[in-house]
Amino acid sequence: MFKDKLKVKTGEVEDIVLSYLPDNIGHQQPVVDAMIYSVEAGGKRIRPLLMYETYKLFGGNSDVIKPFMAAMEFIHTYSLIHDDLPAMDNDEFRRGKPTTHIKYGEALAILAGDGLLNFGFETAAKAFSIEPGSKKVEEAFSFLSNASGIYGMVGGQTVDVLTDAEGEITREKLDFVYDLKTGALLLASMHIGALLAGADKKDIEKIDIIAKKIGLAFQIQDDILDVTSTTEELGKPVGSDNKNNKATYVTFEGLKKASEYVRRLTFEATELLNSLDCKNDFLCELLLYLVDRKN
Amino acid sequence: MFKDKLKVKTGEVEDIVLSYLPDNIGHQQPVVDAMIYSVEAGGKRIRPLLMYETYKLFGGNSDVIKPFMAAMEFIHTYSLIHDDLPAMDNDEFRRGKPTTHIKYGEALAILAGDGLLNFGFETAAKAFSIEPGSKKVEEAFSFLSNASGIYGMVGGQTVDVLTDAEGEITREKLDFVYDLKTGALLLASMHIGALLAGADKKDIEKIDIIAKKIGLAFQIQDDILDVTSTTEELGKPVGSDNKNNKATYVTFEGLKKASEYVRRLTFEATELLNSLDCKNDFLCELLLYLVDRKN
Repeated sequence: MFKDKLKVKTGEVEDIVLSYLPDNIGHQQPVVDAMIYSVEAGGKRIRPLLMYETYKLFGGNSDVIKPFMAAMEFIHTYSLIHDDLPAMDNDEFRRGKPTTHIKYGEALAILAGDGLLNFGFETAAKAFSIEPGSKKVEEAFSFLSNASGIYGMVGGQTVDVLTDAEGEITREKLDFVYDLKTGALLLASMHIGALLAGADKKDIEKIDIIAKKIGLAFQIQDDILDVTSTTEELGKPVGSDNKNNKATYVTFEGLKKASEYVRRLTFEATELLNSLDCKNDFLCELLLYLVDRKN
Repeated sequence: MFKDKLKVKTGEVEDIVLSYLPDNIGHQQPVVDAMIYSVEAGGKRIRPLLMYETYKLFGGNSDVIKPFMAAMEFIHTYSLIHDDLPAMDNDEFRRGKPTTHIKYGEALAILAGDGLLNFGFETAAKAFSIEPGSKKVEEAFSFLSNASGIYGMVGGQTVDVLTDAEGEITREKLDFVYDLKTGALLLASMHIGALLAGADKKDIEKIDIIAKKIGLAFQIQDDILDVTSTTEELGKPVGSDNKNNKATYVTFEGLKKASEYVRRLTFEATELLNSLDCKNDFLCELLLYLVDRKN
């Protein structure tokens, strides 16, 4: 039931995202190929899906959301390409496929990441021609650039990389990484959806709280799966955090407390969502699914 | 005379650019340090200077230009950091200082580049709060993102890297690299200056042609200096193109024809500039200086 709906909606979101990919453009085609390879490699499309559903929750019904959905997925994908590089996490496979630098070489992978980050903003800027002079679009733009940069994702990734190199992380820094590295773009997705749909300030604040709780629950669930799942279920090696000596919420608090925390965060998020005047059952089910998944 | 004026104006532009650098922000400070190191490493600040002078040429007098000046320099700086990486040009020194990855390690250099590219857009977005709802600002934004991405700088850099790896380049591809890798941001600088000052379409088109000619002359002059200058004059090793088997305009056309072409391009550009109703003697002198420099 929900899984069928999810499949249809993810397909719809994916079509929107892919429709913004660049066409064949000339001598620089190899970097475009690497960008397209990375975006088409798949993934759950959670960010644009959350953005779209939050947008519809507040009655949004214009095309203005679409460039932002694509931009969000492009920016997320660039971050994966650069995270996988030899100087960073040095990962050779992602979702069962060779990572971008394995497939295209390191130079093109760096450029494909740069290209996607840039193309994300270039794509979001297409919203200006859909609603010229719209302050909401301008605000969404500022919010996106803030969430993906040093005050958001890049900032979180920096601390993640540095603490990996140091071999230890404090609980406070771990919270910081969770908040910024993955949390910032998830929050921005829902925030921009609400903002562009014209939600009022109070409701946007509620959405931000919901997104923070779900973002955190989502990541702790990742840590739990790394310990409890099988490689088959997860689609990637389990126990990798342990192997890489990577401290997680589970390391600090133990499995039981971690699971309880995920349940509590999810309960609070869905309660808050239900307290809004509008209704979107699918979004509610989606939040539950995100933290109750097996992979 | 001109050199004194240039020094004062470059200082003014540099103050504007540096004023937009981020303050101390927390755990992610190391990436901010690497960003600041790279931006403060110097350079001629040609792009923001050209933008500012073109803006003033058409009577621009608001602060709205300033975030774009800073954004342009940040984006230019990110491109240098990533170009210098081991997987790209593998350069250890720039302007007599260790490159970012030598000073901070490769992971932080990748992140500092990502951070600066992102922060460039984040900074440009500050123009929205200076002139909210301004279609000119929105257009400037779109133009910037187009010039720095796959249709511009990233596209040019891709072809440069690929032809380096192949060991040969056709004349057509060389023109393509000149046009996009360095040309696109120089053109965008003058274009955005004119656009934000409210220049009419006809004049903006003229500015684009001027910028193209100057951008090309500037790069061919670089090629010439690599052959004719001394290491002392140039402040970096001469003959590096030859050493790296890098074909340039000089390789294809010879020194004499290259010098003539630079002179012709510069003449045509200054003639066009003088044909505009407005006047800016400094800008004219600046264009001459850019192609008549010794380093």
